[in-house]
Amino acid sequence: MMLADLPSIKFLQQPTTSGWVEQAIAHLDTLLLDHSHCERKAAGVAVNLMFRYPAHTKLVRMLTAIAQEELQHFEQVNQWLERRGIALGLLPAPPYGTLLNAQIRKQEPQRLLDTLLVCGLIEARSHERLGLLARHCPEPDLAAFYQELMASEARHYGVYWLLATTYFDRDSVSQRLEALAVVESQILSTLHPEPRIHS
Amino acid sequence: MMLADLPSIKFLQQPTTSGWVEQAIAHLDTLLLDHSHCERKAAGVAVNLMFRYPAHTKLVRMLTAIAQEELQHFEQVNQWLERRGIALGLLPAPPYGTLLNAQIRKQEPQRLLDTLLVCGLIEARSHERLGLLARHCPEPDLAAFYQELMASEARHYGVYWLLATTYFDRDSVSQRLEALAVVESQILSTLHPEPRIHS
Repeated sequence: MMLADLPSIKFLQQPTTSGWVEQAIAHLDTLLLDHSHCERKAAGVAVNLMFRYPAHTKLVRMLTAIAQEELQHFEQVNQWLERRGIALGLLPAPPYGTLLNAQIRKQEPQRLLDTLLVCGLIEARSHERLGLLARHCPEPDLAAFYQELMASEARHYGVYWLLATTYFDRDSVSQRLEALAVVESQILSTLHPEPRIHS
Repeated sequence: MMLADLPSIKFLQQPTTSGWVEQAIAHLDTLLLDHSHCERKAAGVAVNLMFRYPAHTKLVRMLTAIAQEELQHFEQVNQWLERRGIALGLLPAPPYGTLLNAQIRKQEPQRLLDTLLVCGLIEARSHERLGLLARHCPEPDLAAFYQELMASEARHYGVYWLLATTYFDRDSVSQRLEALAVVESQILSTLHPEPRIHS
C-alpha cells in the first residue's frame, strides 16, 4: 500500500485549544456536515494537483491514492449524515483555507512547494482534531469512527512532506514549513464563532 | 454496489469509423497516454460536479462512486504506461472536449442538464471505443485490459442518464440528449490527425 508506514511528523506549531473541543462537542451535527465538505475538498485538491503536474510521476501516484482515500472518507461521513438525518448542503467555510492558500506563492517552483506544505499542514491539523474528537466525543460509535479516520488520515501529511522533499531540498522544505506552520497556528489562535473542523 | 445493473442506453448517433480504429491500433502507446488523461479528467469532472451541487444528494452519492472508479482506472492505465516505459506527461487534447463543453448552456437548471448529458455522451463514446480497442488490439493482454475497463465504464453513461432523469423530466432529457448526440457525432465525423481516444 502506497500510503503505509510513513513517519509521523511534528508539523503543528501550536496545539488546538480546549475552546475548540468544547465548541465542536456542542455541535457534532454541524461538525459532521463540515467534515463532509473537508473530505470532498481534500479529494478535489489532490485531483487538481494531478492536473497541474501531470509529468510529476511520484506526485501523480501518491495523490491518486490520497484522492481515493479522501473519497472513501467522504462517502463514510455522508453515511453518518444520512444515519443522523442531516441533509447534504452548503455550509459557509471558515476563513482558515482561504487565509492559508493566500500564503502560496504564485511563481513556480515555489508554488508547488507551498501547495504541498499547505496541504500537509491542513492534513496535520485535521489529524490532530479528529484525534481530539475521537477522545472527547460523548457518542462511542462516532468516537470510534473518528479514531478510525484519524489513523488513516495520519499518513496523508507524511505523503505531502515526502513529496515536498522529493522535489525540493530538505532545508528549503523545513524552513518554509516552519514559516507556514507559524501562520497556520496564528489563523487558529482566535476561535471562529461558527463550529467547524478548522474553526 | 451503486453503479451496478444500469440499462444500456443507445446514446450515440453515429458509430466510430474504421479510420479511427486503424489510427488507434497504429499508435497504441500514444492512445494509452491519452487514455490516462481521459481517466483523470473524468475523475476531475465528477469531483467538480459534486462541488457545484453539494445539496444534490443522489448526484453526490453516484458521482462519488464514479470518481472512485475513474481514479482506479487512472491508476491501472498508469501501470500500463509504466510497464511499457512511457513517461507520464502532457499530451495536447483533441478538440472534442472543448467543442462538446461549448454546447453546455450557462444558465441553471439547463447547465446541470447539459453537463450531465455531455458527461454521458463522453462516457458512451469512451465505452464504444474501448470496446473497439478490446476487439482490434493485436496485443492480447492489452486487449483484455480494454475489455475489463469497457465492462466497468459501461455503467457510467447509465449513471449520467439516470441523474439527468432524476432532476429533469424524461422528455426534456431525451430531446436535449438527441440534439447533443448529433453534435457529438458531427465533431467526430472528421478524424483528428493526432491519435487520441476522442480523435
